[in-house]
Amino acid sequence: MKNLKFIIAFNGMKYHGFQRQPKERTIQGQLETAFKKIVDENVKITGCSRTDAGVHARNFCFNTFTKSRIPEENLVRALNSMLPSDIAVLSCEQAEQSFNARFSAKGKEYVYLINNKNNRDVFLQGLCLHYPHEINLEKMKEAAKLFIGEHDFAAFCKSENKKHELGKHGTMREIFSFEVEEKDGFVELIVRGNGFLYNMVRILAGTLIYVSEGKRTQEDITDAFKTGDRNRAGKTLPPCGLYLNKVFY
Amino acid sequence: MKNLKFIIAFNGMKYHGFQRQPKERTIQGQLETAFKKIVDENVKITGCSRTDAGVHARNFCFNTFTKSRIPEENLVRALNSMLPSDIAVLSCEQAEQSFNARFSAKGKEYVYLINNKNNRDVFLQGLCLHYPHEINLEKMKEAAKLFIGEHDFAAFCKSENKKHELGKHGTMREIFSFEVEEKDGFVELIVRGNGFLYNMVRILAGTLIYVSEGKRTQEDITDAFKTGDRNRAGKTLPPCGLYLNKVFY
Repeated sequence: MKNLKFIIAFNGMKYHGFQRQPKERTIQGQLETAFKKIVDENVKITGCSRTDAGVHARNFCFNTFTKSRIPEENLVRALNSMLPSDIAVLSCEQAEQSFNARFSAKGKEYVYLINNKNNRDVFLQGLCLHYPHEINLEKMKEAAKLFIGEHDFAAFCKSENKKHELGKHGTMREIFSFEVEEKDGFVELIVRGNGFLYNMVRILAGTLIYVSEGKRTQEDITDAFKTGDRNRAGKTLPPCGLYLNKVFY
Repeated sequence: MKNLKFIIAFNGMKYHGFQRQPKERTIQGQLETAFKKIVDENVKITGCSRTDAGVHARNFCFNTFTKSRIPEENLVRALNSMLPSDIAVLSCEQAEQSFNARFSAKGKEYVYLINNKNNRDVFLQGLCLHYPHEINLEKMKEAAKLFIGEHDFAAFCKSENKKHELGKHGTMREIFSFEVEEKDGFVELIVRGNGFLYNMVRILAGTLIYVSEGKRTQEDITDAFKTGDRNRAGKTLPPCGLYLNKVFY
């Protein structure tokens, strides 16, 4: 059995997230259907993360074991011809038997994209958050720095994170970097870390927006770390602006 | 009556072009419906150009006469709230009574966008041409220069251009500039001219692709000008890559 490592990109607009669900259109569902037609096997796909409905990915990794001897290059071509045009297989290579797209991941990079212009962007519908209000970049940059390092992010995730799903680190996570960049009327929040809780990036981004609006202070963030109080953080921004950019192994 | 000049952007993917058609979804149809709700008048809209089904616009101009006294700023806001999210009103200002979006135009800039990467771009479906083959930029740049100046473009338009619609200049048009630019795996063909015939930009772009592929030579282009022979030009590229970028008055 070969263990194949794939990198894909997808526009999540029309999907209920990555993970297979019985009655919903999901990325995993599309991939498994395409695989079945090509390799005539029920392959089991392991994705690097779930991703919510409407969230996008520029480089999402998954792995799967297969008996198929189809060369990797041909598999990429065949999958691309089977998959809908909002999913693209970028690469495929053989990995070690021990490689697991989820558990081998050392870190991930997410981007939250905000259109800060007065007008909506007709070419980025469902692909960014339109926020046509003044943004205080300096305040956001300063607040973003507070997230860097190892912290308990209990206040920055959806309370539905079930304890048994959290793993050995509970709600502790390490953020490696958190940048706030402005270019041509767009603001990008770029965050790298060793892992992210349910809704965490969207809540971190929403907290920075609240800081920009003066609804939260730097103290609220440090208090949120201490108390785990979700109300000290900001709102959860919509999924349309969120991109899984890279996975690090 | 005020003569109002509007600039809009639209994603043409789901539309049968700009111009109103009885049974089709068009940009003009959407605009007139929105206007009727706001100003309670049957306004007559004059667009700067038609634009085919599936063609996009970053800055499309139209004008309309209205009795309404709603301030321009409020009209923009009201229209944006009424229009579907793939049409955006960018600005509105009062124009001279003699201003006509179509006949006052001194020139236009179009862009043809080509994704030259191996993989399709899941975020630009319907918004570019995916051409995953080698492109000879130098050949294309040299050939593009031949189009600059005043020429008879009879060979570079769809034969359906009806004579009575061509106007006093027939198939004579002047191209001011024609640039071929490559950036991050995308190639942009940027052409400015005093006017364009039916399908002309898509045929010019297709001719440059044929030159890159060695299917046409520089001589074919100069011969096409002399003979008006459509077969000397290249194929008509699909509408998805075409953007009306600017109109000059």
